[in-house]
Amino acid sequence: MKATAKAHTNIALIKYWGKRNDELILPTNNSLSLTLDGFYTTTTVDFQEDLKEDYFELDGEPVMGEAYKRVTAFLDLIRRMADKEDLFARVKSYNQVPTAAGFASSASGFAALTAAATKAIGLDLSDTELSRLTRQGSGSSSRSIYGGFAEWEMGEKEDGSDSYAVPIASENHWDVRMAGVVLTSKMKKISSRAGMRRTVETSPFYEGWLKSIPEDLSQIKKAISDKDFTRLGEIAEANCLKMHATSLAAKPPFTYWIDSTIRVMQQVQEMREQGIPAYFTIDAGPNVKVLYLPEYEEQVERILREVPGVTDVILSKPGPGVSYL
Amino acid sequence: MKATAKAHTNIALIKYWGKRNDELILPTNNSLSLTLDGFYTTTTVDFQEDLKEDYFELDGEPVMGEAYKRVTAFLDLIRRMADKEDLFARVKSYNQVPTAAGFASSASGFAALTAAATKAIGLDLSDTELSRLTRQGSGSSSRSIYGGFAEWEMGEKEDGSDSYAVPIASENHWDVRMAGVVLTSKMKKISSRAGMRRTVETSPFYEGWLKSIPEDLSQIKKAISDKDFTRLGEIAEANCLKMHATSLAAKPPFTYWIDSTIRVMQQVQEMREQGIPAYFTIDAGPNVKVLYLPEYEEQVERILREVPGVTDVILSKPGPGVSYL
Repeated sequence: MKATAKAHTNIALIKYWGKRNDELILPTNNSLSLTLDGFYTTTTVDFQEDLKEDYFELDGEPVMGEAYKRVTAFLDLIRRMADKEDLFARVKSYNQVPTAAGFASSASGFAALTAAATKAIGLDLSDTELSRLTRQGSGSSSRSIYGGFAEWEMGEKEDGSDSYAVPIASENHWDVRMAGVVLTSKMKKISSRAGMRRTVETSPFYEGWLKSIPEDLSQIKKAISDKDFTRLGEIAEANCLKMHATSLAAKPPFTYWIDSTIRVMQQVQEMREQGIPAYFTIDAGPNVKVLYLPEYEEQVERILREVPGVTDVILSKPGPGVSYL
Repeated sequence: MKATAKAHTNIALIKYWGKRNDELILPTNNSLSLTLDGFYTTTTVDFQEDLKEDYFELDGEPVMGEAYKRVTAFLDLIRRMADKEDLFARVKSYNQVPTAAGFASSASGFAALTAAATKAIGLDLSDTELSRLTRQGSGSSSRSIYGGFAEWEMGEKEDGSDSYAVPIASENHWDVRMAGVVLTSKMKKISSRAGMRRTVETSPFYEGWLKSIPEDLSQIKKAISDKDFTRLGEIAEANCLKMHATSLAAKPPFTYWIDSTIRVMQQVQEMREQGIPAYFTIDAGPNVKVLYLPEYEEQVERILREVPGVTDVILSKPGPGVSYL
């Protein structure tokens, strides 16, 4: 009753920014992401008859507290599905996701956990079923089941049965690259969960955000299909700015940006003026991710490394979906 | 037929950010400002029978081009009101408003011009009439007719006859100070006129902005009446962040902020954590204005001057309304 799975993280180009149901993790809008090759989690789940509780190790260290609770609560879902509620597991995860880079490790983490745990306990799930299930651990992990571009369809049903990701284009469709630009931050952080909740509840711009999503989605899917990098980048960059703008209007207002976030944003805009096609996106944190095409990789990396406040630049290609080892 | 007037600039705490009529300069929402003592324009208007056209001198230098056209077009309004359409003027203005500080010199400039020109040509206008008239030169100048806190009522009529500022509390009501924090900017600028137009026309957040104004206004007027500095600052800061957020969602998106804008914003928030009541507001540019109480003046100035990227800090008290010299 042991299985090992590997899943890659993903970066949303149309952002997930708000839940309609906190418990089931049902979003208020569809989102769309690119799965990345360079960042992944490998997880082994071993269900053993003699265990009295779950054990969870991350990068060789035992994990307790909130992170442990989140994993065991999620394993409870799988035990219930398999009708084996008294069976506990040893879970060992290895993250190839530099936490400091602001690449969401919960996406790859929960996708790998879901794949490994369901296989180990004897469930044989389709990708759709995996995506729907892992969504309940971490919303964005629903998209990490697939390689390349994936869309998380918000669904309409109250039980969440129609809320899962679908593949848009595989990792081989189009070699669009992403640079993770790591910045130093001394700012206190508002978690993305807390940030989206406050925004949904208090921002007068939230309604405008939701209304603008369908058009962004239809345009970015056309850009992916046409391999139109300018269009892809423009929509992704504008969508990220809109998302961050909603939080500036929350009560009280907040931002994830620091001074060097703005410097990198403006450097990316300057690159375009110099003829280098590059666009940024930013998640719920100060770090910036930069979309670019492979032929500009050297230039993009060099320019980004020169921006004051940048401590690292990590490059990645499109990555594959979840797999078993 | 000669008169000299002096008017002070003002900083909006509830922002003017969009027109419903470009020609008449009619806004989409009420705004509220504090007139500042430290920054003013002194203007002499001399109508002379023998002139064939207007002359305009600013700080001793003749002005041509767009700025000249804006002044003569405005004088045309006054000539029409006085039924003296063939009478031209020599206009001499002196700005005590450091342009680099991002304090809007057009507000004090047009308020002084309106007062001097109407008196010189023999019109005897009330403050309400001055405010309504000067609004057609520069929207924000409508508020500079009054000292202290003033509200520009947007009005409803198509001819703009009910769109003018009213006094909320004189400069002697409450000694709230403002520090103009001057930053170096190499960014290309989008004028506030162009910025607000693009935002009104394309931002999905513009409707939410407008809906949120009445509540902000009623709360800030209560704060002024109660001399509640925390409330005043919180509302002003949140209102400015909302205004800047609308432009991040425009098509294409834009921001007036640079890296040091964020640094100053976060330094102000840090001051509050250290027990120094201070709040920021930002107009259509990178510079920051900081609201504080007189007893913290030394600390506020010292801390702001230490922020990297700050080239000057200019302090001001509440200032009076327009006057004749």
